[in-house]
Amino acid sequence: MTAAPHQNLAAPPAPAPGSLLQLHAPALGGLEPRLRGVLADAINQPGSLFRLRLVLALGRAQNVDEEIAGRLATAVEFYHTASLLLDDLPCMDDATTRRGRPCAHRLHGEAATILGALALINRSYALVAEATVALPFHLRTETTETLDACLGCAGLVAGQARDLAFADTPPSPRAVGRAAMGKTAAMLRLALELPAIAAGASPLERRQLRRLAVYWGLLYQGLDDLRDLRLSAATGAPKTDGRDSALGRPNLALATGLPLARARLQHLEKLAAGAVRELVACGRFWSVLQLFHRQLSAPLDSV
Amino acid sequence: MTAAPHQNLAAPPAPAPGSLLQLHAPALGGLEPRLRGVLADAINQPGSLFRLRLVLALGRAQNVDEEIAGRLATAVEFYHTASLLLDDLPCMDDATTRRGRPCAHRLHGEAATILGALALINRSYALVAEATVALPFHLRTETTETLDACLGCAGLVAGQARDLAFADTPPSPRAVGRAAMGKTAAMLRLALELPAIAAGASPLERRQLRRLAVYWGLLYQGLDDLRDLRLSAATGAPKTDGRDSALGRPNLALATGLPLARARLQHLEKLAAGAVRELVACGRFWSVLQLFHRQLSAPLDSV
Repeated sequence: MTAAPHQNLAAPPAPAPGSLLQLHAPALGGLEPRLRGVLADAINQPGSLFRLRLVLALGRAQNVDEEIAGRLATAVEFYHTASLLLDDLPCMDDATTRRGRPCAHRLHGEAATILGALALINRSYALVAEATVALPFHLRTETTETLDACLGCAGLVAGQARDLAFADTPPSPRAVGRAAMGKTAAMLRLALELPAIAAGASPLERRQLRRLAVYWGLLYQGLDDLRDLRLSAATGAPKTDGRDSALGRPNLALATGLPLARARLQHLEKLAAGAVRELVACGRFWSVLQLFHRQLSAPLDSV
Repeated sequence: MTAAPHQNLAAPPAPAPGSLLQLHAPALGGLEPRLRGVLADAINQPGSLFRLRLVLALGRAQNVDEEIAGRLATAVEFYHTASLLLDDLPCMDDATTRRGRPCAHRLHGEAATILGALALINRSYALVAEATVALPFHLRTETTETLDACLGCAGLVAGQARDLAFADTPPSPRAVGRAAMGKTAAMLRLALELPAIAAGASPLERRQLRRLAVYWGLLYQGLDDLRDLRLSAATGAPKTDGRDSALGRPNLALATGLPLARARLQHLEKLAAGAVRELVACGRFWSVLQLFHRQLSAPLDSV
């Protein structure tokens, strides 16, 4: 019995989001065991995959080739994972647990953790280059500029440095926002803009996506700050709780007090919802963002 | 008085090798002071710039556009500098001095040093992408593959991890070579191959360049190993001396004894000189490699 011809022509089913990490992971064979441990854990025990799912959904909505979207999505998730590995180090946030397990540096050592983060970052750059190699000249240039803006001295790296230096500066919502902008917003901007560039989105749409990344980044970080204040270590929150106040890290609720922090987050939620509406007005396919907006702002109901 | 027309048409003079680092550095304005300190030192107090000068010379010899060669050269030097910043960290080699000055983490802290290394790596990827954006499809693909092979789990990252794990394995010339391959040879391969890809070098030439990178990498690392054993801290050697034996790092001379190590290095010098000769047989312009080979193997005369 032979397969019906149309089965040969059908596109293979898209891999599940989590399996994309395995598909595009660095080759682990022959690696030093501790480095392999860091990478295997990062690949096999992922977090919520919010950024990966966001890139995939945006890619599908905009008819980006599934192979290309899968590479971009995995790259963004690997950049994010690498930044978490480094954030948790003793010289940074000195966290002990992440996602309910001991941090990578507790399990595999600091050196292997730093090298694991580097390996993920290198892999991410390779994946973006593979995904964009066939794009026209100007879209490849825009991809390079966006990566540089989000990951380099204007983005993630600067935000993390400001985060660490925060203990030396007077806390204010403005200063908290500045640190969050560099980190969380930069990574969300990458997740929103990379598939948009690949799909050839308009300058207006790109501008709205950057606004949304800022609102989402501030909202996400603000909600995380409230959690850090309220939860005890027993609840299994994503990072070691209470560390922000102990370490003098930027924390919106610590800077303004709880009622003002709550009001500010509700305002941010409205701004973000407005940015999503304006995108949907540009094209119906952007309505896929509504689902992610609801997920991201859901914790607001319980603060 | 107006300038003669031909003066307007003349190409601007090529920037000095050292000033390329400043020209292509990440923007330091507004950065957190410790991170700015790490980057400013890396840019303003460079080492020998061997890799940068090598890329520039190869670019010129092969008629690669000066702008493109400058970006590739700076990228390779930044990758190298980032790997040194990380190598010296307490959790890696725990060095105290580098190039006769206190290490970056001693001056600016560990967190700023890790973030500074990341900033340089991100900048390097942006520079390579800018340099290669106008190359044909297949040469961009080859650039991506070469970066992945040299910097990722098959190259630099794996070599550094093996280096750190070396204390747990019996020392042998083979194991020493394996660690050196991953680190020094991978970075030299990048310096040799990136301009060759941009110039469209033949597969035969590319293969010879990879051979040369391996011989040079083993030779360079072996000479460094001898220095580590022989010099005292007072002589201002590039890294904290005597640390290889103290930390159980791979060291050729420790693994084989001095006379055998010397003979092995002389053999490697002959193999490298042979690879250079075969390249010169492919095209006269490769003779530029002879100068770099003499520089790299010069310390052999005094060991």
